[in-house]
Amino acid sequence: MKNTPGENFRTIWLHPGDPATVQIIDQRRLPHRYEVVDLRTHADGAIAIRDMLVRGAPLIGATVAWSLYLAALEACSSAKSLERQIEFVRSAAETLAATRPTAVNLRWGIERMLAALADVTDSDAMVARLRAEAEAICEEDVAISRDIGEHGAELLARIAARKGGEPVNILTHCNAGSLATINWGTATAPMYVARERGIPIHVWVDETRPRNQGSQLTAWELAQSGIPHTVIVDNAGGHLMQHGHVDICITGTDRTTRAGDVANKIGTYLKALAAHDNGVPFYVALPSTTIDWTISDGLRKIPIEERSADEVTHVSGLDGDEIRKVRIVPEGSPVRNDAFDVTPARLVSGLITERGVCEASEEGLAKLFPERAGAD
Amino acid sequence: MKNTPGENFRTIWLHPGDPATVQIIDQRRLPHRYEVVDLRTHADGAIAIRDMLVRGAPLIGATVAWSLYLAALEACSSAKSLERQIEFVRSAAETLAATRPTAVNLRWGIERMLAALADVTDSDAMVARLRAEAEAICEEDVAISRDIGEHGAELLARIAARKGGEPVNILTHCNAGSLATINWGTATAPMYVARERGIPIHVWVDETRPRNQGSQLTAWELAQSGIPHTVIVDNAGGHLMQHGHVDICITGTDRTTRAGDVANKIGTYLKALAAHDNGVPFYVALPSTTIDWTISDGLRKIPIEERSADEVTHVSGLDGDEIRKVRIVPEGSPVRNDAFDVTPARLVSGLITERGVCEASEEGLAKLFPERAGAD
Repeated sequence: MKNTPGENFRTIWLHPGDPATVQIIDQRRLPHRYEVVDLRTHADGAIAIRDMLVRGAPLIGATVAWSLYLAALEACSSAKSLERQIEFVRSAAETLAATRPTAVNLRWGIERMLAALADVTDSDAMVARLRAEAEAICEEDVAISRDIGEHGAELLARIAARKGGEPVNILTHCNAGSLATINWGTATAPMYVARERGIPIHVWVDETRPRNQGSQLTAWELAQSGIPHTVIVDNAGGHLMQHGHVDICITGTDRTTRAGDVANKIGTYLKALAAHDNGVPFYVALPSTTIDWTISDGLRKIPIEERSADEVTHVSGLDGDEIRKVRIVPEGSPVRNDAFDVTPARLVSGLITERGVCEASEEGLAKLFPERAGAD
Repeated sequence: MKNTPGENFRTIWLHPGDPATVQIIDQRRLPHRYEVVDLRTHADGAIAIRDMLVRGAPLIGATVAWSLYLAALEACSSAKSLERQIEFVRSAAETLAATRPTAVNLRWGIERMLAALADVTDSDAMVARLRAEAEAICEEDVAISRDIGEHGAELLARIAARKGGEPVNILTHCNAGSLATINWGTATAPMYVARERGIPIHVWVDETRPRNQGSQLTAWELAQSGIPHTVIVDNAGGHLMQHGHVDICITGTDRTTRAGDVANKIGTYLKALAAHDNGVPFYVALPSTTIDWTISDGLRKIPIEERSADEVTHVSGLDGDEIRKVRIVPEGSPVRNDAFDVTPARLVSGLITERGVCEASEEGLAKLFPERAGAD
């Protein structure tokens, strides 16, 4: 059962024959292996998030949701009273919350699932509500990604019209792709919609060290979908922009402040600087669930996760038929591995959301999301 | 015989027992293996340059010089007349000139060696002159690097004084180190001199994809010399600068225009943008031999070498005791691999040369090198 990007693609789903098992793709094995992993407990879900079998803000949100559904099933088999069962689910939520500090969708998913527990009167209703809520989170995300794709494709169509049939060159960083969401992706959604509409595009895929999500995931999913693309090292984008080879940058984001500052995979800031220096529009695609309305100054307020040195010192790849990990930094040299950086709103040309494209500013976001702006 | 950075370090030398053999370190094997390779013909030298057993502008210049000395020895054993021998050396020079298009030192080394052939009257004199000229090129380079180190260390001393004993955090990209020159390096020379003078420093070492000269070479030589350093991915520098963790950037250059535009390893431009955006001084260390006085606009006039896709698709590292190459980009994804980018002079705080530090501009360079400025 191979599940490849397109209309029916999913990155997380309930096992078709066993409603006590959730399935995901082990994204650490891509592009070399496509392997489905079963999650049977909320601890399986926590490990999947922490060890990055799943990654990307929306998919993390969905995984935490399904993990709390699994926690409810566990609670029913281990505790008698509804009160104790709910306590179990709440404690599972705490475990899950600690897995990835930067991803705002983690908290969002947890809060939404816990809200679904309000006034449940029995165990069956609790399980049913959490299942329905997890399903709703996923289907809403698919619809949101699709809408982001429609709005972003309009930007691409305008550039394509100006270029008179020449492909629109898009640069993207990391994987804000189908694999980071439930389907379509955020930064990639406009690319998939462009392909459906016959807008010619070509994608520059940043390798995205240290985890290589660009060369390992974005390149894989674009290749599966037949979208023309070229893998480049993270160092190359500035040079390509200086020489007119990039028409637009589109990246995703893990957290956006209400002022439009954008936390995304480390290195995004460098591409935004180069885009700004060369007059290349720099857009960030995001579901509004990743907006943190409580903060304004991203540089000072968004905590940046520092990850294991191992991600920098070692690289995995294919040697013949085997996946091997090799050491590329000498033993005696220390390493630092910040996972994200913050791109200030002044470098962002616009935000592509499910409700349309807006300026990366408090005013821009307030126009599209009047019900949230000023709420905190 | 292990030759490690320090006073007596050399990256290329005449075999102590055999004046018909030149020796180099196979830098592709570092940091995992230290292996000395014998060059016996000019073709060996051409391969060493093309396949990057040696790299770095000054070392390329020295290798081409020694390769022409080897060509003279070959010429004497294969041709009778001095005229034919000189023809052979000139044809070797053409072969060598074609190995790396961007490195201006390649042409410089060739021209200087060919100039040494002027009015030679016999074969022995030809060989002796070329040997003396290659030796002079190396010893002059050591002196130049040392002078760059002295001038750069003054910049570091001033920052150290301001920081009151806290280490000066220096960010460097690629390897403009001892290994790129004959000794001391260009960007690293101020670090070695600072260590001698007791100025506390810490170096952020950019990994420098695709060939990882930062993690493989700069980290190795700093570790050998006991200089505190931390390896980071190329994506991280901007984030570190945003948070005040970088006091100064120092890189090398493969070619500098008379206006101060700087061609260096791909990705240098991105760091210069980040330095500019965060008020971090960005210096480029160079021997004046790498200044191309014939051109002004680096972006339009410096040809950028495109190298093999293999450098991006595969990575070498240590698996247990073995060096293995693994594929990290999926088979179906095309790759582009530009080796250098150009940092415009407006982003460069200053040039550290053997004669002192100057502004990255036509006026700045003209003050230090009045005999060259306006010569073309």
